[in-house]
Amino acid sequence: MIRELDFFIFIGSTYTHLAVNRAEALAGHAGIALRWRPFSARTLMIEQNNRPFVGKPVKLAYMWRDVERRAQRHGVPFAGVPPYPIDMDERANRVATVAAAEGWCPAFVRAAYAAWFLERKDPGAVENLAPVLERLGHVPREVLARADAPDIRERYAAETDTARRLGIFGSPTFLCGTEVFWGDDRLEDAIDWCSAH
Amino acid sequence: MIRELDFFIFIGSTYTHLAVNRAEALAGHAGIALRWRPFSARTLMIEQNNRPFVGKPVKLAYMWRDVERRAQRHGVPFAGVPPYPIDMDERANRVATVAAAEGWCPAFVRAAYAAWFLERKDPGAVENLAPVLERLGHVPREVLARADAPDIRERYAAETDTARRLGIFGSPTFLCGTEVFWGDDRLEDAIDWCSAH
Repeated sequence: MIRELDFFIFIGSTYTHLAVNRAEALAGHAGIALRWRPFSARTLMIEQNNRPFVGKPVKLAYMWRDVERRAQRHGVPFAGVPPYPIDMDERANRVATVAAAEGWCPAFVRAAYAAWFLERKDPGAVENLAPVLERLGHVPREVLARADAPDIRERYAAETDTARRLGIFGSPTFLCGTEVFWGDDRLEDAIDWCSAH
Repeated sequence: MIRELDFFIFIGSTYTHLAVNRAEALAGHAGIALRWRPFSARTLMIEQNNRPFVGKPVKLAYMWRDVERRAQRHGVPFAGVPPYPIDMDERANRVATVAAAEGWCPAFVRAAYAAWFLERKDPGAVENLAPVLERLGHVPREVLARADAPDIRERYAAETDTARRLGIFGSPTFLCGTEVFWGDDRLEDAIDWCSAH
């Protein structure tokens, strides 16, 4: 059995709201440790000309209805369609990278998604990020400075490179060994794969 | 409870292989009748600039691996990656439209998918369509002539118009009342929705 599941996430992906609120419990129940890995899905999507919603209003409208229904199905909070797109300079994702380096990534990413989906605020804006960080017991000014520092930018780019090399193209992605599962709706498949291998 | 589920299908969609082999049993078990409705998903996808795999080799490779794993998970036969894309002049889909008008659509679409996925032949080619039709007890020449006739072309276009109006953008799509569920992986959601409404 595979006991570790890499959880590649990008704050800005809509379906990742579901995964962020579901993955820990399901993995924990199966005895599998999740490794949260922020990466720039946006970079890979632009590179690969893979823009599922840009200029596609019919699919975009469906996506929000589907996210709403899936949230209801899984008992995940949803408070209406939030701002979109968000985190255009990927600050929240770089803060998540700081958090991954320091061991508080799950708490931060969950809080960033709560700010986005429940308070309907862009978690990439400093004025929205600061109270999230404070509530988690961090000094916003210090964390934001780290998120801008070269070593964190490099770590974020390196995780994006790793994702590219693994054939990852979106968020959330679950990686079990070398097996890639894309989408919140493949979480159960990924956990079953780990359990069976 | 909603007792009818519209099943919008396009022969040429890869994940529809899974739905074609799963939907009847799941719907039947829930006491729901499926109404098979061939339409030109390709027309809508081109209109909406929604081409999930064209020029996207990373996502394309993932899709085939995912279809293979999902087939295994659900006990659906899979014999390796078949030819793709197929049915470029949508003849198989127009035959499905004849079949829908005459009451043998499920048998034909399942047989077309078996030819495509298991024999790895383009079901849109006349030389592959003819034996499929013969095995189902039809005279290929007659059915193929009907598939080219104006009334069938109009019916196929009308079903595509209906899909467009409903906000449908891909295959398979399940429609429960006015609620749209896209993808084989939303089959269970669609059936649960029917049961609950």
